[in-house]
Amino acid sequence: MTKVAILGGSGYTALELIKILLRHPNADIVCVTSRQEETPLVAEMHPSLASRISLRCEPFHADRVVARGVECVFGCLPHGASMATLPSLLERGVRVVDLSADYRLRDPNVYAQWYGESHHDLAHLAQAVYGLPEIYGEEIPTAQLVANPGCYPQTAILGLAPLVAGKHIDLQSIIVDSKSGISGAGRTPKLAYHFPECNESVTAYNIGQHRHTPEIEQSLSDVAGEPVEVLFTPHLIPMNRGIFTTIYAVPRRPFSESQLLDLYRTYYTKSPFVRISTNIPATRDCAGTNFLDLAVRVVRGRLVILACEDNLVRGASGVAVQNFNRMFGFDERTALA
Amino acid sequence: MTKVAILGGSGYTALELIKILLRHPNADIVCVTSRQEETPLVAEMHPSLASRISLRCEPFHADRVVARGVECVFGCLPHGASMATLPSLLERGVRVVDLSADYRLRDPNVYAQWYGESHHDLAHLAQAVYGLPEIYGEEIPTAQLVANPGCYPQTAILGLAPLVAGKHIDLQSIIVDSKSGISGAGRTPKLAYHFPECNESVTAYNIGQHRHTPEIEQSLSDVAGEPVEVLFTPHLIPMNRGIFTTIYAVPRRPFSESQLLDLYRTYYTKSPFVRISTNIPATRDCAGTNFLDLAVRVVRGRLVILACEDNLVRGASGVAVQNFNRMFGFDERTALA
Amino acid sequence: MTKVAILGGSGYTALELIKILLRHPNADIVCVTSRQEETPLVAEMHPSLASRISLRCEPFHADRVVARGVECVFGCLPHGASMATLPSLLERGVRVVDLSADYRLRDPNVYAQWYGESHHDLAHLAQAVYGLPEIYGEEIPTAQLVANPGCYPQTAILGLAPLVAGKHIDLQSIIVDSKSGISGAGRTPKLAYHFPECNESVTAYNIGQHRHTPEIEQSLSDVAGEPVEVLFTPHLIPMNRGIFTTIYAVPRRPFSESQLLDLYRTYYTKSPFVRISTNIPATRDCAGTNFLDLAVRVVRGRLVILACEDNLVRGASGVAVQNFNRMFGFDERTALA
Amino acid sequence: MTKVAILGGSGYTALELIKILLRHPNADIVCVTSRQEETPLVAEMHPSLASRISLRCEPFHADRVVARGVECVFGCLPHGASMATLPSLLERGVRVVDLSADYRLRDPNVYAQWYGESHHDLAHLAQAVYGLPEIYGEEIPTAQLVANPGCYPQTAILGLAPLVAGKHIDLQSIIVDSKSGISGAGRTPKLAYHFPECNESVTAYNIGQHRHTPEIEQSLSDVAGEPVEVLFTPHLIPMNRGIFTTIYAVPRRPFSESQLLDLYRTYYTKSPFVRISTNIPATRDCAGTNFLDLAVRVVRGRLVILACEDNLVRGASGVAVQNFNRMFGFDERTALA
Repeated sequence: MTKVAILGGSGYTALELIKILLRHPNADIVCVTSRQEETPLVAEMHPSLASRISLRCEPFHADRVVARGVECVFGCLPHGASMATLPSLLERGVRVVDLSADYRLRDPNVYAQWYGESHHDLAHLAQAVYGLPEIYGEEIPTAQLVANPGCYPQTAILGLAPLVAGKHIDLQSIIVDSKSGISGAGRTPKLAYHFPECNESVTAYNIGQHRHTPEIEQSLSDVAGEPVEVLFTPHLIPMNRGIFTTIYAVPRRPFSESQLLDLYRTYYTKSPFVRISTNIPATRDCAGTNFLDLAVRVVRGRLVILACEDNLVRGASGVAVQNFNRMFGFDERTALA
Repeated sequence: MTKVAILGGSGYTALELIKILLRHPNADIVCVTSRQEETPLVAEMHPSLASRISLRCEPFHADRVVARGVECVFGCLPHGASMATLPSLLERGVRVVDLSADYRLRDPNVYAQWYGESHHDLAHLAQAVYGLPEIYGEEIPTAQLVANPGCYPQTAILGLAPLVAGKHIDLQSIIVDSKSGISGAGRTPKLAYHFPECNESVTAYNIGQHRHTPEIEQSLSDVAGEPVEVLFTPHLIPMNRGIFTTIYAVPRRPFSESQLLDLYRTYYTKSPFVRISTNIPATRDCAGTNFLDLAVRVVRGRLVILACEDNLVRGASGVAVQNFNRMFGFDERTALA
Repeated sequence: MTKVAILGGSGYTALELIKILLRHPNADIVCVTSRQEETPLVAEMHPSLASRISLRCEPFHADRVVARGVECVFGCLPHGASMATLPSLLERGVRVVDLSADYRLRDPNVYAQWYGESHHDLAHLAQAVYGLPEIYGEEIPTAQLVANPGCYPQTAILGLAPLVAGKHIDLQSIIVDSKSGISGAGRTPKLAYHFPECNESVTAYNIGQHRHTPEIEQSLSDVAGEPVEVLFTPHLIPMNRGIFTTIYAVPRRPFSESQLLDLYRTYYTKSPFVRISTNIPATRDCAGTNFLDLAVRVVRGRLVILACEDNLVRGASGVAVQNFNRMFGFDERTALA
Repeated sequence: MTKVAILGGSGYTALELIKILLRHPNADIVCVTSRQEETPLVAEMHPSLASRISLRCEPFHADRVVARGVECVFGCLPHGASMATLPSLLERGVRVVDLSADYRLRDPNVYAQWYGESHHDLAHLAQAVYGLPEIYGEEIPTAQLVANPGCYPQTAILGLAPLVAGKHIDLQSIIVDSKSGISGAGRTPKLAYHFPECNESVTAYNIGQHRHTPEIEQSLSDVAGEPVEVLFTPHLIPMNRGIFTTIYAVPRRPFSESQLLDLYRTYYTKSPFVRISTNIPATRDCAGTNFLDLAVRVVRGRLVILACEDNLVRGASGVAVQNFNRMFGFDERTALA
């Protein structure tokens, strides 16, 4: 059994992570930390875990985590807090899957530009591997620090990778229009996420300014081998979970739908969590799973790609366990299928 | 045109009230107050009112309200704030419909027991009329201060009045099981009303301890002419609007369903906003209206009464306008049908 | 009072239309027809109308409608049924607002291509006016037959008209990504609209093949004075009402956001139902109203237009009454504000 | 590996069952039947199962099921169809967990009264064990035919068992007020479950006439050792999953809340899937699990019991696997925790 710890246990991604890890035959959760002053039972903070986990939340102390034999830490802290906390563990040799944004953007200037503060841990940033297994899978087994990808970016990157890899599209023509359930906004109450405000309503937010934009562009540029730019518009829709992303791109040469389908099927032939269908997917069908569902369409010469996922599983905690599995040599699908 | 003011304009009941009053041919909103330091446009606070109302929110000053020629003030303040604010208007001769709980309970000891603080305006409390037009309709035209009834109580009181008026049931047997949409909890964000927490979930709260209990009992005791006690259980369900109340009572003598139906139809023959159906009502059918829908059933000798309403219209702002109409001599249905 | 009839009274648009017309000071509903064999009370078919309308549904007979003194008929029939039914009324001189698609597309070949059947009433098709008052407003007062516009098209057309009118964008670059509540799919139960299938899920449908596409293109081409082509992707999201449309276009020359805002404000200066905001709109704020809310953004040189409406009011029955008001000389806003 | 088959694979309980069994280390699904003429892939009927199960649906043939080595059949057929189909398997020695209502009511007259048709398989009815493990757990290991309990009944029976076992309440005073998500109504589209009809609405149905009433009474009478009668009112609320049941009863002697809590904790001390909390449960916290959550309150001398569950897991397919585990000697919690 690999002993694991979870830092920042109060939010939705931590809850989802605990649920997945409780089913994992090779992982043993030995520590959950929280910045709260009290040290409530984990099951008091998350009543759904009653009778499933007996741990009590504790304040974070790096030495204590190490002393407990923890080999892997999952960071569920907010950005900023993450890079203030994780170095103490990394320096002690612990391996980390960080679900925050702190180690996702390789260029600290880009981080500063989009997150409004300087990066304070350039040393580890330089070593971090972006934890999107379908793209960076070979680097993950040996990584000490995996920067778990954002929820929206996974749909955009995996939805576009086969096209940008082969330079099949105009790399400046990409539009990413995403629709997300409300859990993506986290567990802190705000008026915008107050039930009567967002139920029975849909709106867009942070148009062209969402922090997931540079993350999408960094990965797509890696895949393309040249700069890729996207216009990204996120929307909030009245449901708990799920992201549905509609992607538009202008092809460089004519494509038939079956050619496009072949391209995608070939590209993802070794990716057990990417499902490609001739039908348009719906988020209900990947809810609660680690699958990312794709479909492709050609309309009047332009390409339309549909990508959907569960934002808390595939978009966060599921892919974190997929990364953990690769890091520690378990079957990639363990606890996820 | 009767000039009206609204105190406490930022919440859901104020918004609903403004929408109804904008359709009222005899009312002119000349003032909306807010405790916020800034004085935003009402339409900034409530974007749905854009291009419909040009007023700016202002701080409350009794003299200014009077100087503006206001004849009726609608109080949308929280309890406590209401009895601290309204006396200054009442003393200046302004008539008031108060949507808070401050003037609903005649006995200040009961108020203190359920609201945890002493009542500070006994003089006006003694004059207040409980604004449930179907029961206290004759007192409303001459009232200076109308205490607008709570949302849950209206379903319970109107659902039970025909039975308790005729002493047809055991007055200690009453169970009131209510299901409410989330807007009833107000507009202040809290974890319990955070979208991902209450969407796809149902729970009960304040079982036997909800502050609407004494309000229900006071009115039913008035109707019965003797003390009535209820066991009241409110639930929150994932929708914006609507209350559905299921009432159980033990009859003193056997009833057929048609006798029960006759009893209700006779009792409410002059009440245009009470609809009685042989079908079980659903909140969708009274949503956005001032109707209170009732149906009756007899099951194995016991009585089951179904009552439903829109909690923001019938349960608050609609009945407030119904009271306003009666106070100022307009047709009761003006702006409401 | 202008006597009106509603053909096809069982669906959601008919219900919404009845609710609006009941508030209309100059309209009197004297007839509601239904293809059902029985002739139920309208209020049995729509329990929300209990105690508000006493009419009984009746089978359609043109002579009977005329004999009743009906001056305006609102057609709420499915496409196909509409062009089979309305000629008998038009020939008797009755004026018609048709909410079906039958008279929207001027070119019968386009109709045949998208609706899969030939057009059978070319004579009236030639006279029909497309009832989008903000664009075709001057033709409506004298029209006998107004083809009420589709729900999606209104957001796309009004969202793009200022841009295509001034040739400010590449007319082949337009992408229209719409998100609609489920009521847009009508009232006939199907698995795709079964609550557990579409609640907590989002999907796209009819990508590039939705029948509203030619309607959007026809109007935008009218405005542009040259052919306009759009890529239209509709999505279904789990809410009852509302359409939110996100439009992408490539400008022909650089625009600042304030220039864009000015362009829109100028274009719609005389359109009381188009609201333009600097904030991103949300469907909750136009729910139940006839407003169409717009906002504009410039992102990395591309234009993003946000348009939203209530699909049953502005998208169907509200604009039908707006057309009725223009046809019969009433203030455009009557019963709608 | 124990080979299992699922009869009637198209509905929600079959889907849920397949998902649970795919995680079961000791079960191997070798056959899924459907009455449809075509033999689609299971994953075509349920897109969420894509890449998780490669079986094709097949018509039912008892011999073929037996020949495949199936040891346990899960029946997900409608009532009526179940007793027409299962005897052929039972006679061939196959063990069965039947999720329909056909074998739940021991008295065929009661069946005929509530289901409107005679029972056609009295022989097997006489042998069937009611599969509520917390009450009938000792009979399950040796049963050939387990009648899986209904969704509502489990909340009512387990919510009341400690009270009726000890004769602590007036056995004629029981009121069971249940609130259910819409998936409980099955997957066949009907107007009542059409999204725009049941979203944003709540209603009651079959008051005092729901077919789960005799099932509740039969089990509670077993526990009490004398006849128990309940007044059962089910409600539909706008969410996919979950049942929340509020139970009212009059105690025979005064109870404190802590006494009541002790009574429940003692009664369920060996039931790993019954969780008892001092907090009021919410369906979100048992969603997707096999837990049945209970809380108890004493209000003005009367008892209020809160019980909730996931209607598809605990209320159907989860408890079916719990029964399967007991029948085949696996740990009761296998694949469920």
